[in-house]
Amino acid sequence: MTQTASEIIFLGQCKDQVGLDARITGFFAGELFNILDLAQHSERGHFFIRIEGCEEGERQAIQTWTEKFFPIARELDMEYSFHDPLERPRVVLFCSKTLACPLEIISRWMSGDLRIDLRAVVSNHLEIEPVMTKLGIPFHYVPTTGDSKLFEKKQLEIIEQCDPDLVVLARYMKILSAEFLAEARIPIINIHHSFLPSFIGNNPYEQAYRRGVKLIGATAHFVTSALDEGPIIVQDVVRIGHQFSVLDMKQVGADIEKQVLASALRKFIEHKIIDWQGRTIVFH
Amino acid sequence: MTQTASEIIFLGQCKDQVGLDARITGFFAGELFNILDLAQHSERGHFFIRIEGCEEGERQAIQTWTEKFFPIARELDMEYSFHDPLERPRVVLFCSKTLACPLEIISRWMSGDLRIDLRAVVSNHLEIEPVMTKLGIPFHYVPTTGDSKLFEKKQLEIIEQCDPDLVVLARYMKILSAEFLAEARIPIINIHHSFLPSFIGNNPYEQAYRRGVKLIGATAHFVTSALDEGPIIVQDVVRIGHQFSVLDMKQVGADIEKQVLASALRKFIEHKIIDWQGRTIVFH
Amino acid sequence: MTQTASEIIFLGQCKDQVGLDARITGFFAGELFNILDLAQHSERGHFFIRIEGCEEGERQAIQTWTEKFFPIARELDMEYSFHDPLERPRVVLFCSKTLACPLEIISRWMSGDLRIDLRAVVSNHLEIEPVMTKLGIPFHYVPTTGDSKLFEKKQLEIIEQCDPDLVVLARYMKILSAEFLAEARIPIINIHHSFLPSFIGNNPYEQAYRRGVKLIGATAHFVTSALDEGPIIVQDVVRIGHQFSVLDMKQVGADIEKQVLASALRKFIEHKIIDWQGRTIVFH
Amino acid sequence: MTQTASEIIFLGQCKDQVGLDARITGFFAGELFNILDLAQHSERGHFFIRIEGCEEGERQAIQTWTEKFFPIARELDMEYSFHDPLERPRVVLFCSKTLACPLEIISRWMSGDLRIDLRAVVSNHLEIEPVMTKLGIPFHYVPTTGDSKLFEKKQLEIIEQCDPDLVVLARYMKILSAEFLAEARIPIINIHHSFLPSFIGNNPYEQAYRRGVKLIGATAHFVTSALDEGPIIVQDVVRIGHQFSVLDMKQVGADIEKQVLASALRKFIEHKIIDWQGRTIVFH
Repeated sequence: MTQTASEIIFLGQCKDQVGLDARITGFFAGELFNILDLAQHSERGHFFIRIEGCEEGERQAIQTWTEKFFPIARELDMEYSFHDPLERPRVVLFCSKTLACPLEIISRWMSGDLRIDLRAVVSNHLEIEPVMTKLGIPFHYVPTTGDSKLFEKKQLEIIEQCDPDLVVLARYMKILSAEFLAEARIPIINIHHSFLPSFIGNNPYEQAYRRGVKLIGATAHFVTSALDEGPIIVQDVVRIGHQFSVLDMKQVGADIEKQVLASALRKFIEHKIIDWQGRTIVFH
Repeated sequence: MTQTASEIIFLGQCKDQVGLDARITGFFAGELFNILDLAQHSERGHFFIRIEGCEEGERQAIQTWTEKFFPIARELDMEYSFHDPLERPRVVLFCSKTLACPLEIISRWMSGDLRIDLRAVVSNHLEIEPVMTKLGIPFHYVPTTGDSKLFEKKQLEIIEQCDPDLVVLARYMKILSAEFLAEARIPIINIHHSFLPSFIGNNPYEQAYRRGVKLIGATAHFVTSALDEGPIIVQDVVRIGHQFSVLDMKQVGADIEKQVLASALRKFIEHKIIDWQGRTIVFH
Repeated sequence: MTQTASEIIFLGQCKDQVGLDARITGFFAGELFNILDLAQHSERGHFFIRIEGCEEGERQAIQTWTEKFFPIARELDMEYSFHDPLERPRVVLFCSKTLACPLEIISRWMSGDLRIDLRAVVSNHLEIEPVMTKLGIPFHYVPTTGDSKLFEKKQLEIIEQCDPDLVVLARYMKILSAEFLAEARIPIINIHHSFLPSFIGNNPYEQAYRRGVKLIGATAHFVTSALDEGPIIVQDVVRIGHQFSVLDMKQVGADIEKQVLASALRKFIEHKIIDWQGRTIVFH
Repeated sequence: MTQTASEIIFLGQCKDQVGLDARITGFFAGELFNILDLAQHSERGHFFIRIEGCEEGERQAIQTWTEKFFPIARELDMEYSFHDPLERPRVVLFCSKTLACPLEIISRWMSGDLRIDLRAVVSNHLEIEPVMTKLGIPFHYVPTTGDSKLFEKKQLEIIEQCDPDLVVLARYMKILSAEFLAEARIPIINIHHSFLPSFIGNNPYEQAYRRGVKLIGATAHFVTSALDEGPIIVQDVVRIGHQFSVLDMKQVGADIEKQVLASALRKFIEHKIIDWQGRTIVFH
């Protein structure tokens, strides 16, 4: 973001060819839109672009921009979207009883640091209800025992009702079924408590202790039906020493999980992530 | 900390001489105390030691340990203390209206990550009272206009009443007078939003922008009467690019401030900090 | 850089206005040039752009590109340049007797990691001549005692003769006069052994020790006539502890100096740096 | 290391029990040895200790120290060693044709940064001989085609002749057989170009590209007969973005490989590593 606040963000992707930048920026010039930051990247024959800037002419609604650009997009067979940087994405948080990650998101939302509209917290642990109630956040208790089809149905009803732009798994610790993902049809970001692809699955810190690694990490990724295999958005690590027990690792690991998750959410809010063929483009 | 949980922590310092380790560890051996971690450091003729471990013999109270060690300490002219790792230090938080740092401490306290006993929040901004009340934290509004002697008197009364082991300035943004420090007589940790000694004083991010630095940082330090000159406990930095406005710097800077402050508090809670002649010994 | 190797790099800057991207990318589209990476940034009313990509049409010489773009540049009052990514910038290294930084550059040049054409090493210490001779690098001994006008004249003659694109001060430890800089008229990159603006001038590690900082750093910057005040290109830090003596700091500091200097040179070689009004734009 | 240079380093390990520190430091006190740094760690019932300091009494040879401590060691069933910090370990370097890592070690050896005695470079690529000859380093060409028993025999003869304290695999890219390891009977440090346990085996950067990780790393570890499974000594990572091709990863990866390898060698030289049951104790 730049000193002059941007008013419109544009994201697009299509098959690469000569002249795409000229075509797209030509459109913006014609609308008297001043591009403050443009990042374009091509790889493996595919073209990705993100633009932000200011309307020097009259201000136009996101809907208007979207409609005006449509003919170009159709011609180029381009996926695209326009966004208002001030718009707050609606978020639903899934968690278990571990509070560190959920409270990180909640306190950043309360302090104004994360521009989100936090719609609800869903958990399979009733014991965190008092905290959520105290904080004034709608809380849904959905136990995850018994038939997964039944409890996933409940979860999907909450999602339908909250209509979120994003579901965040803040150490939810349960695997969502392929059916759930297909039904939910919105991006889901998970925080995994290891530096993927190391230590997939359960108890990564125990695995890390046994292997004697000198750094432990965390990975925020989009959820796909393959466990811990979704496209990676943000990763970070923290240095540990031989004196770290598994418990110590969990403690400093929680710090890095929180940082990584918050950082991924910020990228999401700023419309800087494009998810393509198992990898992400994450603009600076 | 080690896989076997430690039961006693010992911290000591005195003038260096041959045989100190033998003398001190001999005492512990005599008490059937198993040392799980020992770190000793000497510099400029001074000796620093931290020990943690387990009582293989009968468990003894902190008070008993303190008394038993006294003759050795007197002989060596040693400052020392014994601590129970499970004891929670009492903390009073000073802040202004910026919520990021206070909420970081509070959410870590709520999630159990920081083993503290949060006694009160003191602020010169009434607007944060509702949040603190919602969270069930005793809030004291002390406006800092007018005669500093008067409002510092009020602050000292709150400190006296809460009897904290530590005061944390979580972006309090006001300078405490030398008189206040002399009266309070407890450690005070401040978080400064720059990598000290760069950008002392106000508006470090504006200073950083103008200088065009490529990293911004935060520093947790003990407060002394010289502004931003107290002994440094923890520092860290985060990479920024040319595209970062002052506002962007403030946002990612807040992340690093929170991490650094939490990290310093953890070191304090674990009795790993010794403050000596303007520098700190911070054990791993 | 992308999977498909780029063939041309374009760098430009001018006063910002609506339509610049369209104008510039329109030119490239007209030449059947496929843009693989485009980064554009505007700040404080100024426009910066870097483009790299492939010629889908016939290959054209840098000179041809430069001439063809000239009318647009004139019209927009734009500073610009075209570069061949395979071209090796000519470099002259200034150093004293400390070998770590010069040997870093030299070994990266020998291993092919830094695509430079190393023309000469200039030093005020005769004792490093044998090493340079062994490595087959032209060595110039220019003592820096006596009248600075006289020895700077000799240095300028070497520069004139080697015709470098860049002078690198690899721990040269001497201040170049404003007259020298005016005469040399090429970019000069210096490595300073601290995290600027902390610890300007001599003995930064002694200063760091006294202040008790927990990180030490290094800064690569363009040289201007104000000591250690030139535009910063790359900075990095490394964590230290209380147990680090000044000597230890020098040792780990040297590591970070080398990394930072090499990283700045790589950015220079890749034509990713624009120096503007005391700050640098450093593209990713 | 401390401001006062240490004269003796002691390393020890044995089964843990109460009173070990007292016993060991009592011995040193009796010899008028002033301990400047002591680090002791216990885990899983095992005790590790490293001591460095100064002889306040008369200076004694390493051999004398070793003999005097022997009765205590026998009684405690302790593995131990005494070292002179100024002694330079003898090193043999194994490499292929990639020069970055070998040149890093060599240039640090030339600049005095790594206190080693570099005895020879062994490679299966004749093409690097001219560089090594120019640098005045004994070079042994051992092609690794055909029967591994034959060429490993040659390698073992070189090792026997050079009598190194350490073999460093500086991107040697060949697996050493269990027989070789059993014969060589000295520590062997390898640098693996990934953050283990991610991306074991060949082409880790290709694997990293496909997985879309956001950090790439390097790992220095002791070589055991299980590929890339040896005890980890040092690890580090560097941030990458979507725009990094495999080639770009290799380039920045090489930087981190060099840093990590040099850092592991420094720990080895400073006698700070203890290898125990698949994990390393690495003192600060």
